Amino acid sequence: MASSPPRRYFDWAATAPPYVGIARPDAVVPFGNPSSLHAEGRAARECLEQARSRCALALGLKPETIYFTSGGTESNAMLILSFLLRPGAGAYLYSATEHPSVRENCRLLENQGKTVGVIPVEADGRVSAAGLGRSLEKYRESRFAAIMAVNNETGALNDLGALSGPLREKEGPPLYVHCDLVQAAGKVPVDISGWDLDSASLSAHKLGGPRGIGLLYLRKPLETLYRGGGQERGIRAGTEHVAGALALAACLEARTRPGTLEAARTAARARMNQLMGALEATGRFFPIPADRKDADDGRFSPYILQAAFDGVPGEVMVRALDQAGFAVSTGSACSSGKSGRPVLEAMGLDPKRQLEGIRISQGWSTGSEDIEALIQAIGKVLKYL
Amino acid sequence: MASSPPRRYFDWAATAPPYVGIARPDAVVPFGNPSSLHAEGRAARECLEQARSRCALALGLKPETIYFTSGGTESNAMLILSFLLRPGAGAYLYSATEHPSVRENCRLLENQGKTVGVIPVEADGRVSAAGLGRSLEKYRESRFAAIMAVNNETGALNDLGALSGPLREKEGPPLYVHCDLVQAAGKVPVDISGWDLDSASLSAHKLGGPRGIGLLYLRKPLETLYRGGGQERGIRAGTEHVAGALALAACLEARTRPGTLEAARTAARARMNQLMGALEATGRFFPIPADRKDADDGRFSPYILQAAFDGVPGEVMVRALDQAGFAVSTGSACSSGKSGRPVLEAMGLDPKRQLEGIRISQGWSTGSEDIEALIQAIGKVLKYL
Repeated sequence: MASSPPRRYFDWAATAPPYVGIARPDAVVPFGNPSSLHAEGRAARECLEQARSRCALALGLKPETIYFTSGGTESNAMLILSFLLRPGAGAYLYSATEHPSVRENCRLLENQGKTVGVIPVEADGRVSAAGLGRSLEKYRESRFAAIMAVNNETGALNDLGALSGPLREKEGPPLYVHCDLVQAAGKVPVDISGWDLDSASLSAHKLGGPRGIGLLYLRKPLETLYRGGGQERGIRAGTEHVAGALALAACLEARTRPGTLEAARTAARARMNQLMGALEATGRFFPIPADRKDADDGRFSPYILQAAFDGVPGEVMVRALDQAGFAVSTGSACSSGKSGRPVLEAMGLDPKRQLEGIRISQGWSTGSEDIEALIQAIGKVLKYL
Repeated sequence: MASSPPRRYFDWAATAPPYVGIARPDAVVPFGNPSSLHAEGRAARECLEQARSRCALALGLKPETIYFTSGGTESNAMLILSFLLRPGAGAYLYSATEHPSVRENCRLLENQGKTVGVIPVEADGRVSAAGLGRSLEKYRESRFAAIMAVNNETGALNDLGALSGPLREKEGPPLYVHCDLVQAAGKVPVDISGWDLDSASLSAHKLGGPRGIGLLYLRKPLETLYRGGGQERGIRAGTEHVAGALALAACLEARTRPGTLEAARTAARARMNQLMGALEATGRFFPIPADRKDADDGRFSPYILQAAFDGVPGEVMVRALDQAGFAVSTGSACSSGKSGRPVLEAMGLDPKRQLEGIRISQGWSTGSEDIEALIQAIGKVLKYL
């Protein structure tokens, strides 16, 4: 009987493999309800607040600005839809390549009568100061802008530091600036305070932690929709997920240590260059955007590549690689099964290339030999298709 | 060095101790994103759908009516606040003793311009057909009613089977009937279909499962607020918590097996009678409501007792018992730290007794010896206070 080849995982942007030794099972965490006054409750409360302090420290924030949620989607949704509770005019802006959990909730604001506008991206998928400036000019009454740090389909990096100038100096009412850090945290440098953000979201499972836990940073508390027992200082109701919070803290600490983050990023950059160089040699590889020549980590996260192979529909490539033992994806897992590639469309990519796009995403345990095997596998697919 | 006595846990209504062998750590569950098309994603999807089918079977429902959420609070909040998306008049009713995750979200509907009304409870904390009838008479245009199955502070059982007559036969627009099953599932018989419910919510951690996972039953899909990647057929966005869903399924299966449920309930009833009989003998014990003479499980869950001890403020009793090694609570963990006892107030209890109320709640691993120890401990406290 032939043994099947080992699986090689290149879909870290969808979810990361569990970070062994970090994600602590519930059983070893105090099980009490942190809102209970007795010893079991107090022990759980202590762990929860430790987790909060550790997350805050890893992100350079004050503990009281961290609110645990069920994940990145909830963090984005609860923040954006909290504006349904605020009366008054004003426009709500989001960048053209935001994750569905930002885009779709902004569209819901629009359905509910708010003015909503899109901040365009350049051909490389990044928000430019010029493009942002035009949006702020068009929507002078804007009061909210969501700009993600790293795009989940292309790895495009938005330079939040450079954009904070135009965001803060615009005329009219002050902007509330929200940043989706789900693909950025633990992968590329993040500076919530330095970027002058009002809110930011992240998720544990992209960092090797469990599902069902994430956090929302809020510079100031605000009124949110889903109500209940007043947990998380009234911002996020529901019995607190202590084990998840501890796991998130451990993952964040492990991945955001400056030495670790930079060493992993350097290694990811080398592997990305190895991959892109070899794919270039096939003659049928088209990076998306076309002017991404290498890991290019001034403009892109080295962990994510969007790539087209001339004449091979993305879905066909995904299935062929899957059969060969490689997990890659087309777009976001959050939009698989749906038609269209709104992120690639926003970049002005021609429809043929949009359909050819696949996402290859790596992580801290990806090896150079995994890259080599992937290169071989893509080469084989290209021979037959 | 004196060894400290073992802790005895009587706060199961706040959260249950982990059910050993049931709550599976994430590591042994396929880690893929169920929305991914590759083998890792498909394996995760298969587990998720298995979990859904198992939950459905345990509850006597069709799998496509089960939506996984982050817990009971989210299930209640997302259902109730979905009505913000529905235009039109009509009143929204909730029973006077609902959990804050029902009550507070109904109050939010009211803040947003909807008509909201309260269904009164009788002195025993239960909704009667007569009281319900008066509410339906008063709010002829009601289109929604939330009535919990088991109250989390008193254990009061609402007879949803008997109430479904008035709920369904009322004049005016048809009622959407929602039931919070958080304290009922796995403890007392639940019949979502037979009770003709439109929606119902439950939580894993009250059943010994992990935090961060619960479910919402929806007879028919509806449009909800928090948007994102379209998971759970568009009803609940966010990467699916596969490990949590499997753990919830396992807990539900284990606790709802008819034999197991009835045997555990019979044992809980015997322990409750043991407790109440002994407390009665102190001469200072006042059950809440006053006419609850024993486990009385036609009207109450045998798992929860609300009790007052004459002259001892509830908070003092909770602290004294905590120091003696017993975890009990005053009201809901979800309202600890807040003033007032709205559930007891709704029952018309005099304010002095309200302040004396403590909640003693037990579970499947509570033993008769735990009850005996608690009786002794309460006796000691009463000697000194």
